[in-house]
This record gives sequence, C-alpha cells and structure tokens, in this order.
Amino acid sequence: LRQNQDYSLLSLLHVWFKSAYFQRLKALTPEENTRSQHGLFFQDGQRRVDYVLTYSVKKSSGSHSTREIFNSQEDQKAFRREEFEGKLRDMGLELEKDEDGKIPGVYFVKIHAPWNVLCREAEFMKLKMPTKKVYEVKQSNSIVEKISTLISKILEPLHPHVEEHQPKNVKHLSHTFSREKQHLVCRKQFTSSFVSVQIVVNKGKTIYTTVSICVIKMIFYLFPRVFRKYFGEKIGLYFAWLGLYTQMLIPASLVGVIVFLYGCATVDDNIPSMEICHPRNNITMCPLCDRVCSYWKLSTACGTARASHLFDNPATVFFSIFMALWAAMFMEHWKRRQMRLNYEWDLTGFEDEEDHPRAEYEFKVMQKSLRKRQKSQDKIEKLTFQDRLPAYMTNIVMMLLMIGVTFAIVFGVILYRISTKAALHMSSSLITRNHVQLTVKTTAAIINLVVILILDEVYGAVARWLTVLEAPKTDKSFEERLIFKTFILKFVNAFAPIIYIAFFRGRLVGRPGSYLYVFDSYRMEECAHGGCLMELCIQLSITMLGKQLIQNNLFEIGIPKLKKLIRYIRSKQGAFQEEERQKKLTRYETDHFLEPFGGLTPEYMEMIIQFGFVTLFVASFPLAPLFALLNNIIEIRLDAKKFVTELRRPVAARAKDIGIWYNILRGVAKVAVIINAFVISFTSDFIPRMVYQYMYSPDGSMHGFVNHTLSSFNVSHFQDGKEPMDPSHFGYPVVICRYKDYREPPWSNTPYELSKEFWAVLAVRLAFVIVFQNVVMLMNDIVDWLIPDIPKDISLQIHKEKILLVELFMKEEQGKSYIIDSSTSTDGKENCSKHNNNSKVAPPRSRRHTNSTKSF
Amino acid sequence: LRQNQDYSLLSLLHVWFKSAYFQRLKALTPEENTRSQHGLFFQDGQRRVDYVLTYSVKKSSGSHSTREIFNSQEDQKAFRREEFEGKLRDMGLELEKDEDGKIPGVYFVKIHAPWNVLCREAEFMKLKMPTKKVYEVKQSNSIVEKISTLISKILEPLHPHVEEHQPKNVKHLSHTFSREKQHLVCRKQFTSSFVSVQIVVNKGKTIYTTVSICVIKMIFYLFPRVFRKYFGEKIGLYFAWLGLYTQMLIPASLVGVIVFLYGCATVDDNIPSMEICHPRNNITMCPLCDRVCSYWKLSTACGTARASHLFDNPATVFFSIFMALWAAMFMEHWKRRQMRLNYEWDLTGFEDEEDHPRAEYEFKVMQKSLRKRQKSQDKIEKLTFQDRLPAYMTNIVMMLLMIGVTFAIVFGVILYRISTKAALHMSSSLITRNHVQLTVKTTAAIINLVVILILDEVYGAVARWLTVLEAPKTDKSFEERLIFKTFILKFVNAFAPIIYIAFFRGRLVGRPGSYLYVFDSYRMEECAHGGCLMELCIQLSITMLGKQLIQNNLFEIGIPKLKKLIRYIRSKQGAFQEEERQKKLTRYETDHFLEPFGGLTPEYMEMIIQFGFVTLFVASFPLAPLFALLNNIIEIRLDAKKFVTELRRPVAARAKDIGIWYNILRGVAKVAVIINAFVISFTSDFIPRMVYQYMYSPDGSMHGFVNHTLSSFNVSHFQDGKEPMDPSHFGYPVVICRYKDYREPPWSNTPYELSKEFWAVLAVRLAFVIVFQNVVMLMNDIVDWLIPDIPKDISLQIHKEKILLVELFMKEEQGKSYIIDSSTSTDGKENCSKHNNNSKVAPPRSRRHTNSTKSF
Repeated sequence: LRQNQDYSLLSLLHVWFKSAYFQRLKALTPEENTRSQHGLFFQDGQRRVDYVLTYSVKKSSGSHSTREIFNSQEDQKAFRREEFEGKLRDMGLELEKDEDGKIPGVYFVKIHAPWNVLCREAEFMKLKMPTKKVYEVKQSNSIVEKISTLISKILEPLHPHVEEHQPKNVKHLSHTFSREKQHLVCRKQFTSSFVSVQIVVNKGKTIYTTVSICVIKMIFYLFPRVFRKYFGEKIGLYFAWLGLYTQMLIPASLVGVIVFLYGCATVDDNIPSMEICHPRNNITMCPLCDRVCSYWKLSTACGTARASHLFDNPATVFFSIFMALWAAMFMEHWKRRQMRLNYEWDLTGFEDEEDHPRAEYEFKVMQKSLRKRQKSQDKIEKLTFQDRLPAYMTNIVMMLLMIGVTFAIVFGVILYRISTKAALHMSSSLITRNHVQLTVKTTAAIINLVVILILDEVYGAVARWLTVLEAPKTDKSFEERLIFKTFILKFVNAFAPIIYIAFFRGRLVGRPGSYLYVFDSYRMEECAHGGCLMELCIQLSITMLGKQLIQNNLFEIGIPKLKKLIRYIRSKQGAFQEEERQKKLTRYETDHFLEPFGGLTPEYMEMIIQFGFVTLFVASFPLAPLFALLNNIIEIRLDAKKFVTELRRPVAARAKDIGIWYNILRGVAKVAVIINAFVISFTSDFIPRMVYQYMYSPDGSMHGFVNHTLSSFNVSHFQDGKEPMDPSHFGYPVVICRYKDYREPPWSNTPYELSKEFWAVLAVRLAFVIVFQNVVMLMNDIVDWLIPDIPKDISLQIHKEKILLVELFMKEEQGKSYIIDSSTSTDGKENCSKHNNNSKVAPPRSRRHTNSTKSF
Repeated sequence: LRQNQDYSLLSLLHVWFKSAYFQRLKALTPEENTRSQHGLFFQDGQRRVDYVLTYSVKKSSGSHSTREIFNSQEDQKAFRREEFEGKLRDMGLELEKDEDGKIPGVYFVKIHAPWNVLCREAEFMKLKMPTKKVYEVKQSNSIVEKISTLISKILEPLHPHVEEHQPKNVKHLSHTFSREKQHLVCRKQFTSSFVSVQIVVNKGKTIYTTVSICVIKMIFYLFPRVFRKYFGEKIGLYFAWLGLYTQMLIPASLVGVIVFLYGCATVDDNIPSMEICHPRNNITMCPLCDRVCSYWKLSTACGTARASHLFDNPATVFFSIFMALWAAMFMEHWKRRQMRLNYEWDLTGFEDEEDHPRAEYEFKVMQKSLRKRQKSQDKIEKLTFQDRLPAYMTNIVMMLLMIGVTFAIVFGVILYRISTKAALHMSSSLITRNHVQLTVKTTAAIINLVVILILDEVYGAVARWLTVLEAPKTDKSFEERLIFKTFILKFVNAFAPIIYIAFFRGRLVGRPGSYLYVFDSYRMEECAHGGCLMELCIQLSITMLGKQLIQNNLFEIGIPKLKKLIRYIRSKQGAFQEEERQKKLTRYETDHFLEPFGGLTPEYMEMIIQFGFVTLFVASFPLAPLFALLNNIIEIRLDAKKFVTELRRPVAARAKDIGIWYNILRGVAKVAVIINAFVISFTSDFIPRMVYQYMYSPDGSMHGFVNHTLSSFNVSHFQDGKEPMDPSHFGYPVVICRYKDYREPPWSNTPYELSKEFWAVLAVRLAFVIVFQNVVMLMNDIVDWLIPDIPKDISLQIHKEKILLVELFMKEEQGKSYIIDSSTSTDGKENCSKHNNNSKVAPPRSRRHTNSTKSF
C-alpha cells in the first residue's frame, strides 16, 4: 500500500489543457491589468507563483481548559502543515509564505516550480508536448467540409468565443516528453504557467491526500484574469459537449416547429374533431363523476378535440422516428468530436489511469486493521464485500425508499386531483363548477413542480450521503457512483408524474356500471375526450419550463451570488473599506472570496434531464427541442460567466471523454425509443384511427370514427347510488349513454365484455410497437455503422504525424539535425510562436529515405 | 505518396507472438531433431536464417522467337530481383543465396538480421520488450478464482496444450524498447528467432509491396519444428476465442440436454397430445390436399403431437432466455479474455495503425493518373467516390442478385416439395402414398443441404471477386469488406430455408374453401398438426450437422491433403526417390511443398455460422449447443494439426482484437433475441396454450385446448372441383370438418372471418415479443454493466507494472542500479531464464521513495 502511494504521481490524472479566453474579458483597462498582476510573482518579482495553498487559524476563545485543548489541536495542525511543506521543498519546489495577509486568520503559501522539476515530472507523467516542428494540416476541399464550415460560421454566436492562438492550418508535432529530447520542445510553451501549475498541482494533490484533510483547509488556484483562462480538458469537454448538443438542437427544433405548424394547419381538415364539433352529432355521453355529474354532449369537448390534433397527428409519428435517429446521430457526432478534440489536445496516447485511493477509504481500511490487529497479524489492505455489506444494504433500502416516496407523492397528487374535483363538483356555485377543470389542473401541476424541485435537492443530498457511506476506493468510482444514484433518483422524480399520465391515467377507470374506486369512494381519473396526449403535453411543458427557469437559471446564478455575499459580509470584521480592500488585496486574496468549484455533475445532470425531456416523450410535445434550445443558448453563457467570475478557478483535470455521462445518454436514448413507441401506439389515437380507416371504415375515410370508438351503456345498469341525480338534464330521459372504450353493447350475448375491435386494435398497437422499436434500433445501428468513430482527416493526420516524428528523429540521429540547428541559432522562443515554414523546406534526405525513393 | 511508402515501416502491423508448442510434436527422435535443424543456419553455421524468400525460374521452351521474348522477360525479372536484394542489403540485412537447391527451377534466398538492425527496427516500431526485471503476480484467493481454476483444470483436455515457458506467478516487466535502455532488455529473448524473423518480415513485406508482385513468387517462413511454434497474435487470438467459445458451450449444452430431457419426461403428462391421441376424441379433419386427399382423423397425428412436445414446452422459453443471456455473457467474457491476453502479450500500448496501401490500389491510382495526365498537371493521389461508383453499383446489384438466387432456390425447393407431394398422392400404390411424407421431407432436406454447400463455395468466390473490383485501399479494409460480404451471403444462404419454415410455412395456407394456390394449381404447404416447430427442428439439425460434417471436416482436411499431393506429384519430375529426398532436403525445401496459409476468414466464418445455429433458433432445437460442442472439440484439434503440419508457417500478424468478427457476433446475438421471441410466440404453441389456460379454459386446465384451436368448416362450402373425391371415406358422410385456425364457425353472422380469439391470441403473442425482447435486452445490458471489461487483477497489475517501471528508471538514474549490476556480474542470459527472486529483495530506497514513506 505504501509503495502505491509513494509513486502515485505516475498514476494521477495527468493534466493538460486548452485555452479558453472569453472575449468579454478582453476589455481590461491598463490599470485593472496591473492590479490583477499583483501577487502573481514571488517577492523577488522573478519567480512566478504557480499554485497557492491556504489555511485558516482560528482564534482561541472560551474557558481556559477548552482553550488549552484548542491550542494543542492548533499546534498539531501547524506541525503537520510544516511536515507537508517540508515534503514539498524536498521535491524541489520553492515556497514562500505570506504571513501578513490582509484577511485576518487566513494565511497563504505560494509555490513556484523550477524548470528542472517541471522537466522531471513531465517525463515521469509521460506528458505529450508540442515540439518546435510544425506541419501543415491540409484542409479537405470536399463539399461536406464546406457545408460544415458554413454551418459553424452561422452558429458562431452560440459558442463562447475562444481565441485561437495559432493559425488553424498548422499544428505542432507533439511527442511524449523526455529529458534527452528536451531541445525539441518549445520551452516557451512548456514554461507558460499552465503546465507548471498543473505539475505542481498534481504534486500537491498527491501529498494532500496522504495527509489528513483537516490540516489544509482548501487548495485553490490563482486566477490570472489577464492571461488566458485554462479550465482543463474535463471542463473543456463539457463545453464542447454542450456546444454540440445545442447545435444539434437547432435542426430538431426546426423540425419540431414544422411538425407543430403542420398540426395547426390541418386542424380544420381533421374529420374526427369535425365530427365531434358538429352540432348535429348529438352524442350523449355517460357522466364523468358519480351522482353530482350529469350526462353531457360530446360536442362540448370540441375545443379539447381540436387542441389534441395539434399534438396527435401523423406528423408526430414521423417526428418521433426523426428524434430517435437524431439522438443516435448526436451520440455518433459526439464520439467524432471527442476524437477530434483528443487529437487536437494531444491526448491520443493518454490512458485513463487508476486513481489514487481516497483518504476516506484509507481511513476506513486503517480503522478495520486496528480493529482486527488483536486477532491476526496480517496487514489489511482492502475492504471486502462483507465490510461493505451494511453500506450496500443501506444503499438499496434507501434508494427503494426514495423511489417509493416519489411514487407516493405522485399518488398523493392524484388523490388531491380526484378529491378536489369531487369536492368542487359538489359546490353549489356555478362559476366554481365551470372553473373546476382549470383550477384543479393548474394547482396540481404547480404542486407537482414544487415537489419535484424540493425533492431534487433532497435527493442530491441523499445520494451524496449514500455514496460517502459506501466509501468507494477512488475519486473516479466515487464520482461515478454518486452520479449514478443521483441520476436514478432525479430521473424518477422528474418523470414519474409524466409516465403516470402517459400510460396509466384513463386506463384504470373501469366502465360505467363498474367503475374503479380508490378508497371505495373516489373514481379514478379519466382523460378528456381526445386522448391523454393533450394532458401529457401540458404536464410536460410545465415541468420542463418550470425546472429550467427556476432550477437552472434562478438557483444556479442566485445561490453563488448569495454565498459570495455572505462570505464577504462575514469577513468584513476587519476595519478597511470595500474600495480600499479591492485595491490592496492580491489576486489570490480576492479569489479567496469566490465560491469553490463543485464539480461538473450538476451541470451535466441538468442537461441530461433536459435531454430526457427532449427525447423521451417527444411524440407528445414536438416543441420540447425548441424550449431546450432557447434554454441552452442562455445556459451556455451563464455557465461560462459563472466559471469565469463566480467560482474559483477549477482544478484542471485531464480527461479523454465525458465518462459515465455518455453511458447515461445512451441509456436515455435507448429508453426513448421504446417510450415513444408506446406513447404513439397507446397514448395517442393514431393506431385506432389507422385500424378504423383500413379495417372498419365503409368508404376508407375517417367518417364515423368517433362513433366507432364509443361503446354504449344502458343507464338502467348503473349501480345503486351511482346514477346521476339529474337524469333528465337535457329535458328528456336518457336511455343509452356512450363512453370511450371498445366493449360489447348491452344487447349482445356478452354485454360490456371487451369486443373483437378491442383485441384487433390492441394487436395492431403491439405490432406497431415491435415494428417501431426494431426499425428505429436498426436505423440507429446503421447510423452507428455508417459514421466512422474517428473522422477520416484525423486518422490521416495521426498517421502523418507519426511519420514526421520518425523522420525528425532519424535526421537528428544522423547528425543532420537541420531543424534543430536553425532553431538554436535564432532565439528559439521565437521559433515556437512564429510558424516559419522554412522548416518545411526539403531537408537533406536520409540514406533510408533516398534508398526507398530510388525504387520508385 | 512516396514519403508515405518510405516510412511505411512504422505503419506496418507490428509483429509479436506467443509460443504455441503442441505436445504431440514433442516426441521427436534425436535423429529427426538434427534433420529438422538442417538448413536453419547460414553456411558458416553461426548466423541463423531468419527468413527465406523463394522464386522460380521457368525453363524456356518452344520456338526461337517465343524463347527470346521469354528470356527477356526472365532477364527483367532477374534485374528486379537483384534490385530488391540490394535494397535488403542496404537496410543492413545479410543475404545468402542457395543456388544449388534440390528442387529444379526453385531458388531460395536466406536472410539473416544482425543485432544492430534488430535494435534499430525495434526502436522505430516501438515494440514493447520484456526487461530482465521480473515481478510476482499475486494470485487472488477469492472463491471465484478457485472455481475458475478448477473449471479450467477440468476443461484442460479441450485446449491444445501450450507449454508454459515461465512460472505462472512471475512476469517480466516490459517497456517500449529504446536503444538507450538496451541493457535492461533480455538479450536472449530478443535474439530468439521469433522477434528477428518478424522484424525482417516487416522489412521484406514493405519492399515486397513496392516492387511488382510477379518477381518474387512467394514469401514463406522457415518452419522450425524443433523450436517453439509461433503463429502470431492474430492466430493466437483465434485459438483463444475458439477455446473460450467451446468452454462456454459446455454449460449451454448441459442446460440444453436438461431441457430436452424435461421434454422427454413430461411427454406423457401433456394434456393436448393426450387429447389428440385419445381414440374417443374422434375429430374429423379437413383434407390436406384437393380432390385426391380425403378427410382424416386427428388421432392419426398422435405421433407428431407427442414428438412436438419434446421441443415445444415451457422449458424451451426458459432455454431461449438462457441462451440470449449466454450469448451476452460470452461476449463479455471474450472482452475480458482479450484484455487479459493483451496484457500478457504486452500489447497494452499497441495501437492498430493505418495499413500500407495495397499494390492493387496503387496500380489503379497510377492508371487513373496516367489517364488524366493529358488534362491536368495535378498528381492524383486517391480514388474518389466517382471512380468507385461502377464498382459499388456492381457490388450492390450482384449482392441483391445473389440474395435473390438464394430466395429463388428456397422457393424452388418449396415447389419441389408441393409438386412431388401432389404427384405422389395421386400415385395408385398404397405403399408410395404411405411413405409420401418421409420421402418428400428427406429428399427436400438433402437438396437444401447440397444447394447450401455448393452456393457457399460460389458465394465465397463471388464475394472475393466483388471485393477485388472495389479495390479497397488497405489490406485491413480489404479483409473487412470481404468478410462482410461473405458473411451476408453465407448467412442468408444458410438461414433462408430455416426462416421460411419458422415464420412463413403454414401461415400462407388460406382456409378450407378458399385455399391459397401457387401457379393456380398447387396448394401451399401446411405444417403437420402440432405446429411447425417440429419441422423447423428437423431442418435445423440436418443443415447444421451436414454443414459441420461435410464442410468443416471433410473439406478442411481433405482439400489441403489433396493439394499437397498434387504439388508433390508435379515436382516429382526430378530423379531422386521419396525417402532420399525427405532426408536430403533442407527444412525450407520441405516446407515448400506445403500449402500457403490462406487467412483465418474461413475458420471464423464457419464458427460464426455455427454460433448462428446455436443462438438464432435455439428455441426450437435445444440440442444445438451440444452438437456444436462435439464439433468444436474435434475442430480445435483439426485446426491445430492443420496449422502445424499442413500449412506453411503463417505470417505472424499483430492484433489486439478479433476485429470485425466481434461486431458480427454482436449482431448475430442481437438478431437472435428477436428471432427467438418470434419463434416462441409464433412458431410454437406456447402462447395459444397460455391464452386458453388463463382466458378460456372453464376449469383453468388444458383440457379442451385441442378443440378450442380447431375451427369448423361446412363441407358444402368447398369450391367446385376441390372437394374430396371420396367424401364417405369413414363410412359416413362428413358434414363438418375441422381445421387449425381461429375463425368464426359457418353458422355465425360472419362465417369464416377471423374470430375474437384470433385477435386476442395475436395480441398476447405480440405482447410476449415486446416483453421478451425488452426483458432480454435489459438483462443483457445489466450483464454488460455488471461484468467489468478489464479484469480487476489485470488492471491492478498494469498499475503495479507502471510503478515498478518508474522505480526501475529512478534507481538507474540515481546510479543505484542494483538490479543491473547484479545481473551483469553473472551471465546475464541466465538472469533472463532463471527467475531469481533476489531482484525482489528490497533495494536501497530512493530519496523520493523514503520521503513519501515517512508521511505514513
């Protein structure tokens, strides 16, 4: 175990990153510029501060005895701090303490990493470094390329502006750094703060995890606003992903809007809604509730029927197939984009390595070995399944409990709706009764939304608590388990009410004369005539918009601002004024007041849930992509602003991919296919319409469809006490009322049994699900297969780079190091920044080179 | 382009391989031993022959003028050969010509690669080499591990015996070779023939493709029978895959046999077949053919009904779910096994690199550039989509045509069956009529098998021709395209008749009074009572066993033997005798008579088709895994024997995975899920039985099921001329006959319409498909997610190896190279073969090491 820790440097996440310089920060005045420079160097003004550690010493207070205990604790902390600092110095790092800081009780240790330390560490970490040699990247002239350039130009305003610090068609050849070939590497690039910072950070982190957490209160970064902003690949990938997702939403929302407009345009040609609205089709419907409700005319449902058509038309089927393919395309494009970024960021050879064990894990192992020391002499090295069993059990029980809570709340809202509706129906006021539907729906949706928002926060905390309990070994597995749990809880939370409406509401009603009752008194809810699709759509849009507006924008921006304010007020105990403070504080002292970076999990989570709204029930709500797009255009800017101004500079972490999020995305996309299949075939009226048109319609048209979907009920078969109080509501006694179902008429041999039509429609519905699911899955596989994971130009460039690298080494070996000579004769630094194409002029060919050429 | 070729060394498949020493070859007598040694060294007896090139010079014959042309051609060839040999010498290789060979007209060039060349090439290829340092691999003591050890011991006889040349719990630390760190590498391992051979091979291949193909007739390998057999990773992976597949077949066949035995045991308790067999249930069935056939009693179908139960019982449903999971487990296990092999074979850092362009491709590009030279001065570097369009079109058309041919043949066999049956029915002989069923079925199945075998060969040739036409750029893409086309054609060929029987036969029959006719005269086939599952099973077993026996074993062993014989007879023009020849010939002269290695495609293809038989229709034939297992136990031995004795030593190729085959396997496993779902729900009677039992049965038992599935037909409704000639066959006039379908009775309002039961059963069938498919897919995903792709011990070892490597380098750097010193003081070579654990005794700790330890 010890050996493991000593050399964990090699196994740490290697760090490397890309510039991300936001244009809006360019406009700093010279004055501001000098101010931000303050504190960026050691006292000698030469050595750059690469990294800053901070710790706070609390003032002792209280009685004498507690003060003594407190002091001894503080002494111990100070001792461990010194030990830690000694280790940093042993590594060759240079430290400078800032004892007379302007913030009382907070102290800073500035660290500088000298050149030789950087080289040593870079070699051990096998960092890939850009060499001085540049080569031209050929721009392919294909039409596809041109189109994509055009598109990216159009979409430019959607991305945070990133300054390009080198011409686009030139790339530095990069190779794994080794001190023997040091002269090949651009020293300027190497010494530029970001590499050195990162190497020191890794050092710091290694030792940081081996000492107790409480000693060093926090580690944070210099935030040099004047220089380029470096966030590391992990955050770079998040923004790249978000950018691609937003880009991909554009065609989706375009098609969605067209589908919606198609619905609007054809609403007047829709025969079923025309039949419902026609005043002569005076169909008497069975009452919607027991006793107090009376019979009603179908023509009063005209409005709902017309509105339903907007979301329930053949274009919707097309749109959900389109969106399933869209999701597959998105995944494929992301794979390609990721590959391209890996290449551009010199990560191609980088392997995600085993993480360092977490301090909490080691603490548990230590505890266990202390407990067992009496029994055996073996050193305990890991936690077994048995040790973790209680934690696992707690996890499972708690997860089930939380999901149960979600379901209970959904059920509670249903009960609220049913009972309120019943109560309001009984109200004597006519106005109240008229507004029943609207009042109940609105309040229920708002309750749902509030519950979702509250539970989201609760579930986030529960998932973290459960993961801590589980004590995963490495940071990576901790993160993955946390994400997995949070995702499941939040996903169930967001979608449980929607799934109820889509698949259960209106299906568990029973039939007139034999309704289904909850608690023996409340009849289950029915959907309005025209299917539940309309209600699904309302619920979806309220949840989605509410979550986005309140959670994403209000919470995300408001809470950090609030926290900053609180921290500022707390530290205002000192005497100096705000403006003065601002001027005199060094950069790192100012940054001390910022909120620490809490990881990307909330950002991704928010987007994945949104991705769920966009794909899962898209059949019922074609405008979802549009809303998502509008949200993301704001979101990408708010996120960027937050990262730059509201948070301390995040720990730059190296990452090749977006990790578990990709798997979650794939999972959501898979589930989306089957859910959309069921929404189309069961929630919408698409299949019954098709079946009527091709199997039962006498003239092949939709005329008579409404009548066909309604079964008859003889009012004399009502149970006692359930019949309407006012049977002659329309001025004549009702004998037969109609209800929406496929059942045998009262006069058949088997009255109210499910009819042959029911089974036929059911069979067609199920067949549709099978066909839809398999066709879409097949198309997804074809998309997956047709689009290569590695873009062709990238694979060619990787190949070319390898050849050039061998060429470079061969030349060097043969003493004909043309490039090296020419570069060392001039300043060298210049050679890195300027891309002198001289180095591409044919150098003297090597022997091998000439030999092989001859053969041609 | 030129530059590309000059440095293609780097881009070639790097070669490295593993020993595969078959025990049965161990028992060579000393005499044999020296005989095989003959020809393994240069004339000086010191330099090892690493590689042998061969070429043949034809004797001139015929008239004077033709002889002149012939001679000039031969001269040109000789010139190009010399140029090529010069290039080999320029690279530092040493050549020796064998001008006085014992085979007339065949000449050999022996090549030796000296030490410095090997080092240079190894460095450029970034080969990973085992260093002298060994470390202990900890054997985990978990129960899982113990079980797997036990299992592998039991299964040992199934694997070709591979001699372990190092203790199992010790591994050499390996790192990317560089000449600066040469001293770390086991020189003995390095110089052992296989590495040097491979490096020379790569050289040879590079230049080989740049010169015309016709000059050097063939390149083959020394086959040192005395030494370990090295086949390269690609073939190693094939055997590893075949081994794992065969291992995995054991549980599958066990469960399959149990399922079959369950069917046998419960055949007497099966109520439907009891009802059919009961003589009192005298149900009169409608005739099976027009005119000549008469009514028949259902009890005569007793045998078939009982036999059907063997393959159509609830255990089958369980078995197909089991097999779907089995396939997923197999894929997961293979991923893990592959990862383990990659680690053991030091391939972890190896990246599959861009292949060298094929000579045929370059020839086409040259042709194109010659054609276009008049028009433009641009150098043409690649074929565009337009250039390939004709080839693509030919490909698509030919593929569709071939698939069409397959379908036509399937249809032809159907017609043969229908027409023969009709003809035989009309025969006056009673014996002929009694044997009708048997005769027709047997001949049809044999015709099917023969057609499949012939078409398999034809399709192999067509696929190759189409791929050559397409002119893919690299060897890798050539192979992939060829495999893809061959797979599609052979798969359709093997499974088209089976799919017809499973899903179409007996479904397109029509009903009495309105049968479906082919060519206006032949009624479509019906299945025997009890479903088509029985016939599906017969067809499957005949195809599978026939293919395996004839194609795999007869063809695979017979044809190489035959070819060898022919080659031997041809060269027997010389005067010397067989025995004498055998003695005097050098190793490479003997090997010259062996068949060259033709690639692994046929071996994999055979196994994938078998995998198809095992998974696709396993619901109807639970014994398939057992037959596959028996075949493979023979197959793995025949393959090994063929590779060792019948073929020239194959070109050892480096490979990290089994490439496109894995994707094909995944595809087959995916298709298997949906096909099994349909077989269970539509081909078997499982769903109708369930529906009857839970929806229609008066007492919840299966009594009355047979009656429920039979519809009634009023014989007066027969079309004119279609009614049986002998209506009073049973001695009384039949009024109502029964047929297997769910239709309304003649006395209903809508006679012969599909009944409500039909739709209900259909809906349940479709629902079953949805549930089955999604449950199995979900379980597959869970299996995929639960089993990590990289075995835990391997990931720990990789981690450990990295740490040890840094430790090694650090020590070396600090001048405390303890291990190196101790190893150079002794023989050095000894250090590599003996695993002295001294090197594991704690060496003086480095400073960093000590520092970090202190903190603990």
